[in-house]
Amino acid sequence: MARFLYRCPLRWADMDAFGHVNNVVFLRYLEEARIDFMFRLAPGDGSASFSGGSVVARHEIDYKLPLVHRYEPVPIELWVTEVKAASLTVAYEVKDMATAELPERVYVRASTVVVPYDLQAQRPRRITAEERFFLQKYMDDE
Amino acid sequence: MARFLYRCPLRWADMDAFGHVNNVVFLRYLEEARIDFMFRLAPGDGSASFSGGSVVARHEIDYKLPLVHRYEPVPIELWVTEVKAASLTVAYEVKDMATAELPERVYVRASTVVVPYDLQAQRPRRITAEERFFLQKYMDDE
Amino acid sequence: MARFLYRCPLRWADMDAFGHVNNVVFLRYLEEARIDFMFRLAPGDGSASFSGGSVVARHEIDYKLPLVHRYEPVPIELWVTEVKAASLTVAYEVKDMATAELPERVYVRASTVVVPYDLQAQRPRRITAEERFFLQKYMDDE
Amino acid sequence: MARFLYRCPLRWADMDAFGHVNNVVFLRYLEEARIDFMFRLAPGDGSASFSGGSVVARHEIDYKLPLVHRYEPVPIELWVTEVKAASLTVAYEVKDMATAELPERVYVRASTVVVPYDLQAQRPRRITAEERFFLQKYMDDE
Repeated sequence: MARFLYRCPLRWADMDAFGHVNNVVFLRYLEEARIDFMFRLAPGDGSASFSGGSVVARHEIDYKLPLVHRYEPVPIELWVTEVKAASLTVAYEVKDMATAELPERVYVRASTVVVPYDLQAQRPRRITAEERFFLQKYMDDE
Repeated sequence: MARFLYRCPLRWADMDAFGHVNNVVFLRYLEEARIDFMFRLAPGDGSASFSGGSVVARHEIDYKLPLVHRYEPVPIELWVTEVKAASLTVAYEVKDMATAELPERVYVRASTVVVPYDLQAQRPRRITAEERFFLQKYMDDE
Repeated sequence: MARFLYRCPLRWADMDAFGHVNNVVFLRYLEEARIDFMFRLAPGDGSASFSGGSVVARHEIDYKLPLVHRYEPVPIELWVTEVKAASLTVAYEVKDMATAELPERVYVRASTVVVPYDLQAQRPRRITAEERFFLQKYMDDE
Repeated sequence: MARFLYRCPLRWADMDAFGHVNNVVFLRYLEEARIDFMFRLAPGDGSASFSGGSVVARHEIDYKLPLVHRYEPVPIELWVTEVKAASLTVAYEVKDMATAELPERVYVRASTVVVPYDLQAQRPRRITAEERFFLQKYMDDE
């Protein structure tokens, strides 16, 4: 039920000539959130295997509001929407939370299908029971 | 009925530490194909307006095969799947065509919803009749 | 005499196919440090003008040790080595400081000549007295 | 005495929020020219070894004129200025040649020190006689 929160640092050059964070760069932000979740947090929770390799099979991404460079990181919520035998789907919201003055502002909603990959054998592999246990904690049907 | 063909140059640094073109970079390739289609070709065909501003509203992208850096550009086929009052959808295949020795190899299939944007008025705008005429020529339901 | 310290976040995709942070990406890190120094800190100290425009005239950069992706930001020390009528030079060291176990590890030494630029007039401009006062505090001949 | 000519394709997103090709991206252009020269051309001339590994030790780069995105590749001249026992220096000019209407326009002048690297042994290596022979053909003291 928990959602993973990643605070993503921006770089000035993430903006394009229109003066907004370029649409492609948001996928880079999602990659950073996903790597932090799958490579760093997961092992810390007892599962070392995702950092051994994983492949992106699909992205869907909707752009809701433009984002401009700032020094404050932009929050990304990440959660798990599906765990299959050999793939998992994570969803994200890139957004500033509501404050006393401002309502929530969602910049991007997206989801990614990830396939765990055995780099040595050079092929996809099944999700382990330990990984499944870790992922369940971030499951949300939303 | 025609499809637009863009031959996309790769850069060596498009590869990530896994030694393949990074999944995010494919979105950059699609941007290049789309800009060549909407900013360069469209005006050449009589429609100057897309280069005046456009916003990406959504991407869907499926990764089929890994791609490694090479000196030969990778072909991208682009076509139009839908034209609405104030948005259009383009689809793409990033692929090497079949040769005498090898079958077709599709690396990526994707689609993008684009919203024409009036930069001066700072808001979306409707597609003009002239633009619609241009886009119809690349229409494909597939 | 003071040096400005910027803690630069890495991104996983900063690594290239050789598995190290790509040499070009270090220039991006230096840009982030410089922008934090010139656009954010300087105005905070009373000088708003650098964010109004500045142009890079020259970089020199020496690569000392390879750097691999990590979750911990990499420290960048930045200081000013020269202030002329219409340009300034900043120097940097990208390095991990010495610890009880490890000596200092310098990854990159570099310097950049920056020219303040009047975006409206579209031409270089002189450094103001207020800017000079700010820059003097970070002066170091080293 | 010959100079190597590389025609470098631009990408729209190479521009930053100031509407010019970002200064860091020029280093990416130089990398593309250098890889084309050292990885692709050199082997074709009988020397396969540079693609086996090489490390950038130093860049110097001077920015002369701003460059804006265009569909036409930008020419980069590359030549060799020094060959030592275990390093070589290449110089570059990124420029549009003079035409009937316009004089030569130099955007960037730069040089790079490259160290051949033995990836298996994980250390720098000496330049071979065959490589030296290849490099001599592009030697220019300028």
